[in-house]
Amino acid sequence: MPKPGSGEVLVRVQLAGICATDLELVRGYYAFTGVPDHEFEGEVLEAPGESDRVGQRVVGEINISCGKCSHCRAGRRTHYERRLVVGILDREGVFAEFVTMPLENLHAVPDSIPDEGAVFTEPLAAALEIQEQVQAHPSDHVLLIGAGRLGKLVARTLALTGCELVVVVRRETLKQLLTECNNRTISVEEVGENKFDLVVDTSGSPEGFAMAKRGVRSRGTIVLKGTYKGYVNINLSELVVEEITLVGSRCGPFPPALHLLENCLIDPAPIITDYYPLSEGISAFRRAEQPGVLKVLLRPATDIS
Amino acid sequence: MPKPGSGEVLVRVQLAGICATDLELVRGYYAFTGVPDHEFEGEVLEAPGESDRVGQRVVGEINISCGKCSHCRAGRRTHYERRLVVGILDREGVFAEFVTMPLENLHAVPDSIPDEGAVFTEPLAAALEIQEQVQAHPSDHVLLIGAGRLGKLVARTLALTGCELVVVVRRETLKQLLTECNNRTISVEEVGENKFDLVVDTSGSPEGFAMAKRGVRSRGTIVLKGTYKGYVNINLSELVVEEITLVGSRCGPFPPALHLLENCLIDPAPIITDYYPLSEGISAFRRAEQPGVLKVLLRPATDIS
Repeated sequence: MPKPGSGEVLVRVQLAGICATDLELVRGYYAFTGVPDHEFEGEVLEAPGESDRVGQRVVGEINISCGKCSHCRAGRRTHYERRLVVGILDREGVFAEFVTMPLENLHAVPDSIPDEGAVFTEPLAAALEIQEQVQAHPSDHVLLIGAGRLGKLVARTLALTGCELVVVVRRETLKQLLTECNNRTISVEEVGENKFDLVVDTSGSPEGFAMAKRGVRSRGTIVLKGTYKGYVNINLSELVVEEITLVGSRCGPFPPALHLLENCLIDPAPIITDYYPLSEGISAFRRAEQPGVLKVLLRPATDIS
Repeated sequence: MPKPGSGEVLVRVQLAGICATDLELVRGYYAFTGVPDHEFEGEVLEAPGESDRVGQRVVGEINISCGKCSHCRAGRRTHYERRLVVGILDREGVFAEFVTMPLENLHAVPDSIPDEGAVFTEPLAAALEIQEQVQAHPSDHVLLIGAGRLGKLVARTLALTGCELVVVVRRETLKQLLTECNNRTISVEEVGENKFDLVVDTSGSPEGFAMAKRGVRSRGTIVLKGTYKGYVNINLSELVVEEITLVGSRCGPFPPALHLLENCLIDPAPIITDYYPLSEGISAFRRAEQPGVLKVLLRPATDIS
């Protein structure tokens, strides 16, 4: 049982989700050891000096920052240079029955949002970060590359702008889920040249980036929304001549993610493939790695009760 | 003597400037044959159907577009996909006594701007394109990489925002010219990490890009203002994690460049290293290639008179 430090609370994890970063983490792509994962929804069990928070359902931001440096004071707390990142960098993650979290990282979950919706707050915030950085105009033609766990949330948030969204998909099952949301899907071969005002690449692959480059129009924008392994060879002169903008995009704001969930504007339910108890965590990871599998959720609370 | 086509006028070139692109062109980096160069100032000699333009001093935009396609109609005429580019792509350039230009590409030069100022309109417009694309806030810390012909114009336009501008320089003579403009200069070794809100790389080199990456802060912007030869190996994940924005930047708007020259807010005179008659064009190119040499201007008109 972890003990909350100064300014921290103890949280019982109700649900936690496996994301692509976790899969890469167990493959050894990050120099991390300890308890993995950062997507969770839970209940505050102990809150020293803040007893009114006890019993509250919460979700938590994953970057732990100082609040004092130039980044933090300028509102870029997720970029504190010596940050800890829950389950990713020097901080135990949430695949656990209990976890301690800084109180300031937590957001109360409105009653109307079910646990299985709230657990998507973190990746949904990451999807919304795109629109914190780049304006997706209602009249834009937007290409989304990748229709995985994160891609599906990006598809949902972008669709809310009214833009014409086209999604490149490979697998038929993923294609089915996307057409449910009224997004037009195209195959890799159908990505034309110079057609899209905005391209979001969630693939994290050199092939995805090449496709984004092929699909974006002159003076258009490519948002990089994924972790690319290693280096990618890029013709910078093409970016200059066509005046392309590349935007790297990581963690996003929790309050708007909660607003969208509370107002039922985003329904992540169709993205959930399966649930596992924490005691079957290894099986859960194996399942999450299978092709076509979307969100696999762990239920640490069921191991206790 | 060239004959103006439909919608074109005949211009006598008074002054023309050698830029980095011209030097790369004669080295064979572009698939271009013909008369090189695109920076000029001249006088309209013949203007069929537009006789009031005869005698006018003019400068000219270098991209020749259709005016009808989706790019042109959306105000992106410089990105017309089958554009001709004066002295660069399928169109004779201005290292000539006489040249034909589409009338719609020409801008009248106000009387108060001398020829040797007006000839900088095209590269000055290219410098201003940065601020068409990216907002340089007065409170920003800005790093400029490269203090060559174009870099010096970028330094002057950025300085007008009031931002704190720091320029990386290698050669002492260039350093001298920059301190004249009250810009702080630093050496390559002094480029710190994560310090600048905005970095403009005019180097066109992988080393310059690496320096830009080292100098930009998280969530900062790197403007690519130069032609990079070949491919550059880039760690896209770093751009994602630090949420860096890359912006490719090419040709810019002529009217604001003429405004700045007319109001004496930009003085390109110290950037001029030497003048040559057109008949000594080969020597002019050799001179322009020498280290520390800035703008070399050709005077085609002197060959005639």
